[in-house]
Amino acid sequence: MIFTGSDILSVEQFDRSDIEHIFQVADAMAPYALRRRVTRVLEGAILGNMFFEPSTRTRISFGCAFNLLGGEVRETTGFESSAIAKGESLYDTARVLSGFSDVICMRHPQEGSVAEFAAASRVPVLNGGDGANEHPSQALLDLYTIRKELASKDRGIDGLRIALIGDLKYGRTVHSLCKLLRHFKNVQVTLVSPAELAMPENIVEEMRSVGHNVVVTEDLTQSISNVDIAYSTRIQEERFASKEEADMYRGRFRLNQSIYTQYCEPNTVIMHPLPRDSRADANELDNDLNQNPNLAIFRQADNGVLVRMALFALVLDVVDQVDKCARDVNWYNSARTL
Amino acid sequence: MIFTGSDILSVEQFDRSDIEHIFQVADAMAPYALRRRVTRVLEGAILGNMFFEPSTRTRISFGCAFNLLGGEVRETTGFESSAIAKGESLYDTARVLSGFSDVICMRHPQEGSVAEFAAASRVPVLNGGDGANEHPSQALLDLYTIRKELASKDRGIDGLRIALIGDLKYGRTVHSLCKLLRHFKNVQVTLVSPAELAMPENIVEEMRSVGHNVVVTEDLTQSISNVDIAYSTRIQEERFASKEEADMYRGRFRLNQSIYTQYCEPNTVIMHPLPRDSRADANELDNDLNQNPNLAIFRQADNGVLVRMALFALVLDVVDQVDKCARDVNWYNSARTL
Amino acid sequence: MIFTGSDILSVEQFDRSDIEHIFQVADAMAPYALRRRVTRVLEGAILGNMFFEPSTRTRISFGCAFNLLGGEVRETTGFESSAIAKGESLYDTARVLSGFSDVICMRHPQEGSVAEFAAASRVPVLNGGDGANEHPSQALLDLYTIRKELASKDRGIDGLRIALIGDLKYGRTVHSLCKLLRHFKNVQVTLVSPAELAMPENIVEEMRSVGHNVVVTEDLTQSISNVDIAYSTRIQEERFASKEEADMYRGRFRLNQSIYTQYCEPNTVIMHPLPRDSRADANELDNDLNQNPNLAIFRQADNGVLVRMALFALVLDVVDQVDKCARDVNWYNSARTL
Repeated sequence: MIFTGSDILSVEQFDRSDIEHIFQVADAMAPYALRRRVTRVLEGAILGNMFFEPSTRTRISFGCAFNLLGGEVRETTGFESSAIAKGESLYDTARVLSGFSDVICMRHPQEGSVAEFAAASRVPVLNGGDGANEHPSQALLDLYTIRKELASKDRGIDGLRIALIGDLKYGRTVHSLCKLLRHFKNVQVTLVSPAELAMPENIVEEMRSVGHNVVVTEDLTQSISNVDIAYSTRIQEERFASKEEADMYRGRFRLNQSIYTQYCEPNTVIMHPLPRDSRADANELDNDLNQNPNLAIFRQADNGVLVRMALFALVLDVVDQVDKCARDVNWYNSARTL
Repeated sequence: MIFTGSDILSVEQFDRSDIEHIFQVADAMAPYALRRRVTRVLEGAILGNMFFEPSTRTRISFGCAFNLLGGEVRETTGFESSAIAKGESLYDTARVLSGFSDVICMRHPQEGSVAEFAAASRVPVLNGGDGANEHPSQALLDLYTIRKELASKDRGIDGLRIALIGDLKYGRTVHSLCKLLRHFKNVQVTLVSPAELAMPENIVEEMRSVGHNVVVTEDLTQSISNVDIAYSTRIQEERFASKEEADMYRGRFRLNQSIYTQYCEPNTVIMHPLPRDSRADANELDNDLNQNPNLAIFRQADNGVLVRMALFALVLDVVDQVDKCARDVNWYNSARTL
Repeated sequence: MIFTGSDILSVEQFDRSDIEHIFQVADAMAPYALRRRVTRVLEGAILGNMFFEPSTRTRISFGCAFNLLGGEVRETTGFESSAIAKGESLYDTARVLSGFSDVICMRHPQEGSVAEFAAASRVPVLNGGDGANEHPSQALLDLYTIRKELASKDRGIDGLRIALIGDLKYGRTVHSLCKLLRHFKNVQVTLVSPAELAMPENIVEEMRSVGHNVVVTEDLTQSISNVDIAYSTRIQEERFASKEEADMYRGRFRLNQSIYTQYCEPNTVIMHPLPRDSRADANELDNDLNQNPNLAIFRQADNGVLVRMALFALVLDVVDQVDKCARDVNWYNSARTL
């Protein structure tokens, strides 16, 4: 695809070379994200960070990425302060807000709303999540994390072995990740969920149609025993018919350190889209995994900044200028890590 | 008036030369608003963007204008996070917040509150709307838009023919616009509204006292047939005694493309203060006007940034320095339009 | 203490030389806070301004301080948009958010939460208030104000005579101030409150143990008659058993201009942590004190910016670089005062 001036609305927009291009640009952003270098490439540019649905981390990640490129952020959080509530169309909102910004990031609870907004906007729009539909930067940062974690083992995404665990029916994150994986070769995907929360059949078929080996199972311990990545997701209590049913599933899909030690290959990477429910009766990853160096869930969030910097640099066509507008910061060592 | 250090509270502050001065400065802001050039004239300066009542677009427009001059924005949105709710006086709030900013923009639901706040503030205060009272930057951007739209036809504001349509009783925007028009010559104003929502008599008298030709009517189609500008406003449902009454009026004051084609002179400019209610049962401008190049409603919003940049530059006395602290941006073409 | 990379969680962290060091750095920040000079020392750095409880003035004061050092601010206000509400642990939140910032300022309603957050954060955390527990930057700005007000009389904090008035039981501010005062010599503290709202015994004992002269009384007029500082605090209505009881106390602890004139030494400085309840039936400082030049309550807020700039510069280890990355602003005179 041609990135310059484009909206980023869906993972369906990308082919393999697009994905690899984004990841290369993301790699080049590291010195800025670590604040070893400072660039002013987007000085004077404004991000309209329009969150019509609350989301602290995605909102701040986008805003931070734009700041790290030297730009400013104007933002809104939540519906209450919005003219949309008074009957304004997305068309009008987009026409107005795109006069205030060089690029817009938008989250909205309604499926398709961001695409409708983007059609009317005069500046590029990045989808920050539109209901159950798409959240492309999350899928990209997940795949970027997989690539980065495997790179330290001299492996690439081709030949990846991954287990996706939990609510695979409603989890927009895993759907998008599966779509991106179609562009890679020889991927082995194990889908671990209760039958009621299984991955939609069309996504399974899409993966099989490109030759991926897809296994569907309810057996957690076996499925995580020979994978590179165990990607856990949240199973929300309200998906179950009763508290008892939820409790039953909890024992079967929750990963902790002793299960990890007993069943996983050494250095199996654990991922999760976050937020993770850390309460005692949650269904996902135990806190006793926090000291496990293969717990990559916070590196995922860190990588999100790099991927979002890359997306901004690409759609605004300043990739080649980032370094030219930069200088080293040699007097200050940020505690930031990546 | 002397702009340096002044508060901008009311359209009553301006005479003709003030208005023209603001507009000239606004014109000079275009390269920065389009990001063809970047200025750092307000580097290190802070706008306190104090919205004690929600307003996404006005808040962001002011913030964006300040960013485009190189300054930073700290802001608040809504009452809930405010000490005012705990019994703090506007005097105290103003004394405190003016220690954090170089200039303050304030919106507050209570009439006169911004002037009270400004009296205690140590830095200039711009009124971003105080209840039904004043919203001077909106009136200025409306008049600036009229000037700009007519300039392309080699016309000026003197001799303007304008129809104001809709709720003229409660619409603070049209009141302020009428007050600004008193400073120009030979204006023909047609006021089109249901009798219950007529323009207040004192504003009509003020316009007549300077020699303007003011016509009061309920006939939409005739009134828009020989004007330069058709300025529509929202009639809120709750102004009517019943749903039936609202429906009746809807048929009489709503403008759409076929009425435009049938009754308006070619190139009649359509304006609206926004937000526009775009629902099917709204009372104002139809969506089928969206492709009409004379629909200037989004250019109004764009112009708001220029006018607000001008107000900041004037009250902070940096007009002559904007260009001196600037450089061209020649590597990046923003999709921004004006 | 070693400031570089440290969290600022409690006034207990500081000894006398730490306090004096902070104050010297704060003094050096004045040209920047007045915008006579502009520094870019923190260009490219990001403050995560995480207010999980609303607070307009503290939030903006921290944000403003960071902007004045050249950094950017990303922030959140309130719980509703927070993943914490969905069961995310403070550990996870801290791990994620510290990937987006170079330093974090955090307010949270729960005692101890900021320390728990800081333990997991990868970057320094400044406590912006954790429930009834600590608000160290407020205590520092109070003491800094005392030092500055007395300096104009060639006095220092040693030998200070201060009256603390009002709710001394629940007022976190006065507790922290007393703790800081332990590091100075020969302080005379008069504690003026209804018995039910008396200063906790352990704090009184701590002050006495370092040799301070502590007097406990219910007599306002006598206690303010021979002090350098009269520090008033808010007595919240809900602390009393009945409205009648509150009314009774009001007459006894409220300070106004005529009481000031009749009982105070000339130039006795009046302080208050703000916000002050300015309604007619409030319990603290009358509005008729507003013209009294010894009313230092707004200078306290102004000083807060200096103290917070100092804390940022210290924990990020850029104190020596602030001036090196700076230039004069000679074309623009801000109306800011200190």
